[in-house]
Amino acid sequence: MANIRDVAELAGVSISTVSRYLNKTAKLSDERAKKIEESIEKLQYKPNVLARGVLTKKTATLGVIIPSIANPFFPELMISIEEYAQSEGYKLLLFNVNGDKDTESKAINSLLENRVEGILVARTEYPELYSDLDVPIVAIENHIGDHIPLVISDNYKGGKLAFEKLFQSGCKNIIHLAGDTVFEPTVIRRKGFENAAAEKEMSITVLQTNRIEVTKNYQQLISVFEGLEHYDGISTYNDFTAAKVIQYLSNIGLHSKIGREIKLIGYDNITMSELLSPPLTTVSQEVVEMGKLSVLTVLNVINGVNVDTTQFVDVKLVNRETT
Amino acid sequence: MANIRDVAELAGVSISTVSRYLNKTAKLSDERAKKIEESIEKLQYKPNVLARGVLTKKTATLGVIIPSIANPFFPELMISIEEYAQSEGYKLLLFNVNGDKDTESKAINSLLENRVEGILVARTEYPELYSDLDVPIVAIENHIGDHIPLVISDNYKGGKLAFEKLFQSGCKNIIHLAGDTVFEPTVIRRKGFENAAAEKEMSITVLQTNRIEVTKNYQQLISVFEGLEHYDGISTYNDFTAAKVIQYLSNIGLHSKIGREIKLIGYDNITMSELLSPPLTTVSQEVVEMGKLSVLTVLNVINGVNVDTTQFVDVKLVNRETT
Repeated sequence: MANIRDVAELAGVSISTVSRYLNKTAKLSDERAKKIEESIEKLQYKPNVLARGVLTKKTATLGVIIPSIANPFFPELMISIEEYAQSEGYKLLLFNVNGDKDTESKAINSLLENRVEGILVARTEYPELYSDLDVPIVAIENHIGDHIPLVISDNYKGGKLAFEKLFQSGCKNIIHLAGDTVFEPTVIRRKGFENAAAEKEMSITVLQTNRIEVTKNYQQLISVFEGLEHYDGISTYNDFTAAKVIQYLSNIGLHSKIGREIKLIGYDNITMSELLSPPLTTVSQEVVEMGKLSVLTVLNVINGVNVDTTQFVDVKLVNRETT
Repeated sequence: MANIRDVAELAGVSISTVSRYLNKTAKLSDERAKKIEESIEKLQYKPNVLARGVLTKKTATLGVIIPSIANPFFPELMISIEEYAQSEGYKLLLFNVNGDKDTESKAINSLLENRVEGILVARTEYPELYSDLDVPIVAIENHIGDHIPLVISDNYKGGKLAFEKLFQSGCKNIIHLAGDTVFEPTVIRRKGFENAAAEKEMSITVLQTNRIEVTKNYQQLISVFEGLEHYDGISTYNDFTAAKVIQYLSNIGLHSKIGREIKLIGYDNITMSELLSPPLTTVSQEVVEMGKLSVLTVLNVINGVNVDTTQFVDVKLVNRETT
């Protein structure tokens, strides 16, 4: 592979001139610039951006930490981050930490060693790991410190929308399957749902579940879901759980009631939700928008632009066939 | 942030001594090594691995190029690559190229500029982009050149397994929905399916579909699927299409026949497949194994170890409730 020395030699200039050309640190004469350009093309020289990163302290790299892939929401978020970062000329270093503290700590270290210009961290369980870092951070979905900007979906509105949809569909006997209380977003969704019910002076049931998303055992599921068929309106804190509810109802012979006698609404609008049978009505998290806003926010912090501490991404109702 | 100069000063040694310590290029006295260690700890110094990459030409970084996320198989593959690379001390630079040639070409350039030690490319449509690169490459799922190692699922066996499952379940009137002929794996699956049918001297129908996975329009789907209900055994080239078949059958009121009068088998075993109702019988691609083997192969190439040109990852039948 050609190096900077080869380019300099062919162009008949010094190495430092080529370097100035590459880093745009000085204006060269048109003639010299043209010679260098031609040499670069002829030799198919690729500037070593690592070396340039050492020099300029700019690596054009962002770090991304996601907690798990058990829930397809995170790969989808990650891909949308990647797309927008790419369009802004940034690369990603990606770590999936499986909710493990030690892995997450090592991931952070590796990102710092690689001089990423900023870190995006989605729904971490270990905010303390981020409290003393000397690099711009943006939190996604989970508040991790007063001075760290947060990009979060408008979960309160989402919870309200879910209740209102069931209410308007004529449901009289409504249950909300709430997510793990460790996670801020699911707690807020529950609150939005409950308050919307209170506004209509309707009593509802809330079933507090514990991470159904990692429960693989069908027997355990049944023990959680038993009796669910007696409600005419079911709301779940994510689409994954809604898929499990459809399985449960199908299994007890009630598949044909879904969307008719029993209405169901999920949360997230992951790709899978429209592939379910019936296709799932859900509250859309606008994952593309979240990814984009997260990248934009970290780039603003990097460039010294003021950002709001908390930025809400709007949610919307996606009507399909389960309601 | 502390730099190498600070460490040298505190330890009372020269910068080059600290550098020798970090890069393990020379043996230092225990006393000096201990002093440096203490200084690093005290100052919380993080060695700049970029600078080290420039020096040693080792960046401990791999590039990954995936074609799309319309099919959840790719994010799952990517995550399994990430997990194994991480365990081997490698980081990933990730590019999702959306099947676009220009984006893919730019992604390759960016990976080269960042001096990745190797590139993993999944199911590219543009093999020509990889023919002249001066870096170890491993192709996944698609043959891209005789000298480029390929990691591929045993698609022929997978096609056979799918047919045999339907046959053993007593199906008499079998159809295979084949994937786009652009993609080697789906063509080979079809061949495996057809040959297994020939062995049993059974006539089958093959329906050549064109990228159902990106077809969002339900009307278009109906025009592809119409009449499918007259078969008692349906095999699809991926799980995504099987999900669409379940939707089609449900929509024409035949949901309760699935797994009984109409058997259905998918291909891939993506996470979604067990969330469908009924949970989908499918041929598992063993995506974790594929990710792991791909990383292992590129590391072997990097380290000058001989590798087989084509490495097959075994497939297996996952029995659920649609057969």
